[in-house]
Amino acid sequence: MTAAATRSEHDLLGDRDVPAEAYWGVHTLRATENFPITGTPISAYPHLIDALAAVKEAAALANEELGLLDPKKAAAIVEACRDIRAGKLHDQFVVDVIQGGAGTSTNMNANEVVANRALELLGHEKGQYQFLHPNEDVNLGQSTNDVYPTAVKIATVFAVRGLLRAMAVLQDAFAAKAVEFREVLKMGRTQLQDAVPMTLGQEFSAYAVMIEEDRGRLAEAAELIHEINLGATAIGTGLNAPAGYAESARRHLAEITGLPLVTAANLVEATQDCGAFVQMSGVLKRIAVKLSKSCNDLRLLSSGPRAGLGEINLPPVQAGSSIMPGKVNPVIPEVVNQVAFEVIGNDVAITMAAEAGQLQLNAFEPIILHALSESVTHLRNACMTLAARCVVGITANTETLRASVENSIGLVTALNPHIGYTAATEIAKEALATGRGVAELVLERRLLPPEILADLLRPEVVAGAGQALA
Amino acid sequence: MTAAATRSEHDLLGDRDVPAEAYWGVHTLRATENFPITGTPISAYPHLIDALAAVKEAAALANEELGLLDPKKAAAIVEACRDIRAGKLHDQFVVDVIQGGAGTSTNMNANEVVANRALELLGHEKGQYQFLHPNEDVNLGQSTNDVYPTAVKIATVFAVRGLLRAMAVLQDAFAAKAVEFREVLKMGRTQLQDAVPMTLGQEFSAYAVMIEEDRGRLAEAAELIHEINLGATAIGTGLNAPAGYAESARRHLAEITGLPLVTAANLVEATQDCGAFVQMSGVLKRIAVKLSKSCNDLRLLSSGPRAGLGEINLPPVQAGSSIMPGKVNPVIPEVVNQVAFEVIGNDVAITMAAEAGQLQLNAFEPIILHALSESVTHLRNACMTLAARCVVGITANTETLRASVENSIGLVTALNPHIGYTAATEIAKEALATGRGVAELVLERRLLPPEILADLLRPEVVAGAGQALA
Amino acid sequence: MTAAATRSEHDLLGDRDVPAEAYWGVHTLRATENFPITGTPISAYPHLIDALAAVKEAAALANEELGLLDPKKAAAIVEACRDIRAGKLHDQFVVDVIQGGAGTSTNMNANEVVANRALELLGHEKGQYQFLHPNEDVNLGQSTNDVYPTAVKIATVFAVRGLLRAMAVLQDAFAAKAVEFREVLKMGRTQLQDAVPMTLGQEFSAYAVMIEEDRGRLAEAAELIHEINLGATAIGTGLNAPAGYAESARRHLAEITGLPLVTAANLVEATQDCGAFVQMSGVLKRIAVKLSKSCNDLRLLSSGPRAGLGEINLPPVQAGSSIMPGKVNPVIPEVVNQVAFEVIGNDVAITMAAEAGQLQLNAFEPIILHALSESVTHLRNACMTLAARCVVGITANTETLRASVENSIGLVTALNPHIGYTAATEIAKEALATGRGVAELVLERRLLPPEILADLLRPEVVAGAGQALA
Amino acid sequence: MTAAATRSEHDLLGDRDVPAEAYWGVHTLRATENFPITGTPISAYPHLIDALAAVKEAAALANEELGLLDPKKAAAIVEACRDIRAGKLHDQFVVDVIQGGAGTSTNMNANEVVANRALELLGHEKGQYQFLHPNEDVNLGQSTNDVYPTAVKIATVFAVRGLLRAMAVLQDAFAAKAVEFREVLKMGRTQLQDAVPMTLGQEFSAYAVMIEEDRGRLAEAAELIHEINLGATAIGTGLNAPAGYAESARRHLAEITGLPLVTAANLVEATQDCGAFVQMSGVLKRIAVKLSKSCNDLRLLSSGPRAGLGEINLPPVQAGSSIMPGKVNPVIPEVVNQVAFEVIGNDVAITMAAEAGQLQLNAFEPIILHALSESVTHLRNACMTLAARCVVGITANTETLRASVENSIGLVTALNPHIGYTAATEIAKEALATGRGVAELVLERRLLPPEILADLLRPEVVAGAGQALA
Repeated sequence: MTAAATRSEHDLLGDRDVPAEAYWGVHTLRATENFPITGTPISAYPHLIDALAAVKEAAALANEELGLLDPKKAAAIVEACRDIRAGKLHDQFVVDVIQGGAGTSTNMNANEVVANRALELLGHEKGQYQFLHPNEDVNLGQSTNDVYPTAVKIATVFAVRGLLRAMAVLQDAFAAKAVEFREVLKMGRTQLQDAVPMTLGQEFSAYAVMIEEDRGRLAEAAELIHEINLGATAIGTGLNAPAGYAESARRHLAEITGLPLVTAANLVEATQDCGAFVQMSGVLKRIAVKLSKSCNDLRLLSSGPRAGLGEINLPPVQAGSSIMPGKVNPVIPEVVNQVAFEVIGNDVAITMAAEAGQLQLNAFEPIILHALSESVTHLRNACMTLAARCVVGITANTETLRASVENSIGLVTALNPHIGYTAATEIAKEALATGRGVAELVLERRLLPPEILADLLRPEVVAGAGQALA
Repeated sequence: MTAAATRSEHDLLGDRDVPAEAYWGVHTLRATENFPITGTPISAYPHLIDALAAVKEAAALANEELGLLDPKKAAAIVEACRDIRAGKLHDQFVVDVIQGGAGTSTNMNANEVVANRALELLGHEKGQYQFLHPNEDVNLGQSTNDVYPTAVKIATVFAVRGLLRAMAVLQDAFAAKAVEFREVLKMGRTQLQDAVPMTLGQEFSAYAVMIEEDRGRLAEAAELIHEINLGATAIGTGLNAPAGYAESARRHLAEITGLPLVTAANLVEATQDCGAFVQMSGVLKRIAVKLSKSCNDLRLLSSGPRAGLGEINLPPVQAGSSIMPGKVNPVIPEVVNQVAFEVIGNDVAITMAAEAGQLQLNAFEPIILHALSESVTHLRNACMTLAARCVVGITANTETLRASVENSIGLVTALNPHIGYTAATEIAKEALATGRGVAELVLERRLLPPEILADLLRPEVVAGAGQALA
Repeated sequence: MTAAATRSEHDLLGDRDVPAEAYWGVHTLRATENFPITGTPISAYPHLIDALAAVKEAAALANEELGLLDPKKAAAIVEACRDIRAGKLHDQFVVDVIQGGAGTSTNMNANEVVANRALELLGHEKGQYQFLHPNEDVNLGQSTNDVYPTAVKIATVFAVRGLLRAMAVLQDAFAAKAVEFREVLKMGRTQLQDAVPMTLGQEFSAYAVMIEEDRGRLAEAAELIHEINLGATAIGTGLNAPAGYAESARRHLAEITGLPLVTAANLVEATQDCGAFVQMSGVLKRIAVKLSKSCNDLRLLSSGPRAGLGEINLPPVQAGSSIMPGKVNPVIPEVVNQVAFEVIGNDVAITMAAEAGQLQLNAFEPIILHALSESVTHLRNACMTLAARCVVGITANTETLRASVENSIGLVTALNPHIGYTAATEIAKEALATGRGVAELVLERRLLPPEILADLLRPEVVAGAGQALA
Repeated sequence: MTAAATRSEHDLLGDRDVPAEAYWGVHTLRATENFPITGTPISAYPHLIDALAAVKEAAALANEELGLLDPKKAAAIVEACRDIRAGKLHDQFVVDVIQGGAGTSTNMNANEVVANRALELLGHEKGQYQFLHPNEDVNLGQSTNDVYPTAVKIATVFAVRGLLRAMAVLQDAFAAKAVEFREVLKMGRTQLQDAVPMTLGQEFSAYAVMIEEDRGRLAEAAELIHEINLGATAIGTGLNAPAGYAESARRHLAEITGLPLVTAANLVEATQDCGAFVQMSGVLKRIAVKLSKSCNDLRLLSSGPRAGLGEINLPPVQAGSSIMPGKVNPVIPEVVNQVAFEVIGNDVAITMAAEAGQLQLNAFEPIILHALSESVTHLRNACMTLAARCVVGITANTETLRASVENSIGLVTALNPHIGYTAATEIAKEALATGRGVAELVLERRLLPPEILADLLRPEVVAGAGQALA
């Protein structure tokens, strides 16, 4: 290795050598040494890297507009940011996803990469900060405390959009099954006990509607994080950010990202408050709860093949047991359950981090970002795999299901208004005592003509008030 | 004791004696025996009792309207329900707050109390169900599975209104302090380190704004629980509920309660889904997080009196230490912190209960009701006591606070644009080395005339972009 | 009302009237006004009241022994404490279970009740503190910060003993069923899919063993809370507690309670640390997880009666549906599930409270006590009702279970070593294609003589390596 | 690319091409397609890979010993496993860390890698399973349901050892500071209010003792996971595992790993129960709570430099603010706080996963492993960085601290026994009114000679009963 392999950089703590080819600099170097926690660099969140670059670009444009930044420097910064957003430099974002310092290391990593890329574009060498400085130029008029939350919000909005799309795919898959199964009669259950008849289509329709409602809630929660605090600088007083900067930076950022961003009315509050993240995580938890419940049902309904409910069949996607030939397990719902548990756990971590904020800042936003990112991304992947590898391939054991209705005691409840309470009670008693089916007994005793009974068991009659399909 | 002290009632499991004077009957009796868990009866939730009575009243009116219930019976049921809502029979709601059976015992407790009170009104004796029956008349066209969630939602709406009012009181208290302290200069802090100047008014304004935003979120979450599933009966198919019943019952219930209730579009989904409760609890958790953060700050800012920050004084409300004379502790913020921890814990319980729902029903709504009720009620009480016994009496140590600004290194950041970077750095260095104040050094070196320095330290200048008050 | 109905008391904040008959005084009065949170007084924890009295008694004896307390006063305090422990004055413990101040209000409530009862015993009137003072005599050498944690620990030990007994009862109930069902063959399941045969006895044995192991863990956790910090006074330095006091008080307290108490080696650490409570709550959560899992299984195995697994029958303990005649629901396991969710939520609250401790004290022990008490008490009640009202009455559908084995595909796995892999695979295929049973096909093809097949299906063979019963 | 770049493999679902050079096969391929959740492969847990290889090696040796596996095959398997444990094939473990199927994909990934490496060693080509089969040879006598939990336990034991070592390092760092600061007088605080004097050494000693106790608890929890269920096969009945296999495999595994492993007494219970993981996670949560509390304290004590407590100084490890020159933030404690929040969240995920187990198996162990691994590893890293980059470099502001004691009102409490209650109260009043120090006033009024006062303020006197150092 030759001397050219490193360059020396300086900060408050002294001089350090960084690899000559690295776009990141001394602040990033120290951060990687200080936070050897997960081994996962922030480049694992591509939306965050893009959002940071968008913020830096918007700030440069605002600074140029206000006459604070030399147009040549601004142009170089803007181009560097676009390179980043084009994915060219993501591997230079190397600080750990769990880090102290309220995101300072992430912000400095961005400042250094932008600066060094801009220096290159201007014909200088990396590290020649006298020509363009990470702090004085790239970070001009900014603070970690407004850059970082703003970038986290933008990143989250984009990640959430991916989740919303995946949820729509899953909703459609359930809704298609609701239509396909709309004539499949089955016993509804409450408290795991046989209740009254319904259609399998209604069962799947409920899953589709749950997701639809959750999409609505998620979209609402995403609205809340369009409110940013860029221009707040350190604590929300906007110290050292000139008049007009906040609005100009917001306008550019909205243009770059295509998002209807608004600046918070009270920047002091906005700088310390993590409420919007807690709300978002709460909604992700809600989604997780529903997904998990639906997957629990899928696993239960497909239990068997012999000693289970055996109402539906999940498509086999891999061999089941290593010692039980032919066993096919509900592995896709199972993985979704696990993602749900993770999301619920992440919500607790986010809650604690939000509660731990003190005075004018919450220093724990990195773990909030980390946990939120995991939750959103894993939920998206879970929805996609559940839709594609499970729901679309589900089939119904129609005959078994219909027989379970005809054979059920619960059917008596439905026949009650037609055969009278006394007859119904007697039929129920005999069915219980003999193990015979209610339909069979009703016909045997000629309490109803077969065509009337058949009519009462038509799916559209059974579905009743709850017949709406998603 | 004479024979008259009990009456005999019958259910599927056989005969049982209940106290003659009890309005509740055999189903309630068995429930009290089956669920000896907390010792707290459901009468601890007065909103729930009222809501149950409202539902029973609405159902009776709908049934009468549809010609299914004798007008005399209907009138007696309606009057009995009004007695309950007037608080006359709350002590008859005796089943445990934590109970199995998806709320069946609560519903049966209500059916029995209404029936026996109605029997009295009709001139019969309690237990003479041949004249008016808890199940066949009071519960006509209903199921626990639509009555209970509907009542829980109405009860929650009313409880939440109480919380919203308490939050408004607390917001006002913080906002009044924001105005009172708007000229009090102090050091803002990030990561507990001195940052840049701000006003104490801004600090309190942030607390007020947090609560204002949380009120908005809470009101939105309350909207979601105006959607009810009355008319769904057992699983959402509306079996045994005649055409028109759901709409008629909803209309009457809306009238009785004054709430803009709507019937869910998909009753099967609505009957099994607890999403709205999870969302509500998530928002309560958000509120808890903010309240706890604000109380942490109040305790920190009032730490001392000598060896702490000593920025503000909380009003003494009780003697502090049993062995340290004169010690006054921040007991009111401390109790609010603890309520916050409880609410956050309750959210986990509610999440697990919601996730545990299976197929067409969630059997675990009683614990959801229990935890939600606690969270809402305790938060309301916490907000009221925090406002009345703490916030309104807070005073500021104005001189200390101003001195901390003049003495701070962080002041350099504010003076940077006025004295130049080089001078600023030198001043900072000297201040650090000597322990002297920045303002003092700036004046000594005549870097700024005193009147300009004074001007830069005017509260309205310091407050800057974040100067908006709640 | 006459003037005699109140007496005047004085504290740092001034004079207040308290009811003449009240044993509590001005400090308690203020606390009830400051903390109107739950409406539940600390008398709801009888073990705590007893423990407080035991601590006060031990302290008085130690103080007398060291010559610091007049023997007459000491005798009166001791007798007052014994009255409390005899349950005579529990209704005088009126401060709210959720309170600020690290338990100061609870401690002062105890000091005042003891003092006033002791005054009575000495022939004085309540409130005549010049003869015996709540702080100077009853609280002599103590601080809330050592009294309260010590009392909470003792109370928890006694409550845990009740839980351990209830768990033993439940374990015995499961173990009895394990013996009763030891010859009942059934299909084991993994991932809800049919796996390989086992006995129902093994299934219940597993539940018994789980509880046995949990009892072991609970007993270990209880050991840890025998370590107390009495003598630490305010922060662990023992300021104002004379030499020998800590040891003497511990000795007396051990004698009074019958517990092998030890004084922590590092009192500063012991005074601020809540680790033992977090550990205890973690073990309670573990117990909750297992109980909930077992109850989930019971509900699943008893699902039906027609459209479910129908393997076992839970005893009916109340009528099920209000509209579905004859429906009997698993209400007892359901209530246990809910207690489990509550305990898991409480663990989060306790965790947050423990984490929130600052410097030399954790001010949030009241919520820790509250949540721990609920968890322990409700778990005890849940175990008792689960044993008595559910497990002991469970019956098995032996024939159905055996048929499910003979009919299962999974049986092939068991026959594999006896009929060879090729034959086994063919049998499995045919069984899947035709819906016929494996046992039937094996006999039809004469792959095994009936007596050999019967032998392979003997319970003791099926149970195999896992045959040990609890 | 030529045809030689892939090989074809077959499973129940049909034929698939896998890369020719891959040691993994068709089961692994399908798993990577089915579970595109996190993007993180199981090779991220090196301890797990090593443990899986150890289990496979032990099973091969047991099978050979029992005459069930050809010695040549056994030798090849053993050598392949040793290659894995030497780290040569970790990159072949590619299935996602979050996966459905109770760990089946992880087990199959291991079976395939071992088989293909063994085939190579035997001179065959990868995929020539007719010579040595992943299922029939490598997995012989095993099931995912005993292999996976056993491997997870062994992996956890090794990971926990790393954590125990890191905790010892951190404990030593705190204990060294406790000694260094043993003569530094300071004010102790309760509820953030000045209480009574202590030494800074005692404060650090408490942190050391907390860790020491937690190490004890962690070691106990690790004991519990030395109990394995190898030999249980599918559900604990040991079906298809010959007599003597479980014991032989355990013995070999104990030898290979050097761990005192024991086989569970009840294998049915052991196969479905996740109690030991819940307990382990509960203890990790306890550790997280304490670490977080200690870091909160360090951040609070080092707050300033001017407007904070300023009692201690944390070593600067990176530049603080991007806009505030000279600001140094407590980034190391902050990152530890965040790890603590993550661990507490993970505990909830683990709890839910454990609760979700059904009947004879818990299908959700992969998320348990994932969350446990993260918790253990991140805690270890957090302890190491806290010790090395923070605690060892902490310095005390001795003069400030001593002055705070002399200036405090709380000092009165300590002087009480020496100057009398009346004088003490007067001094306290005057100190409060004038802002003057208690020591100063005591000397001025000649209530104590200077040498006596000095004596009372000697560290060893102040430390009192709590003077023990770790």
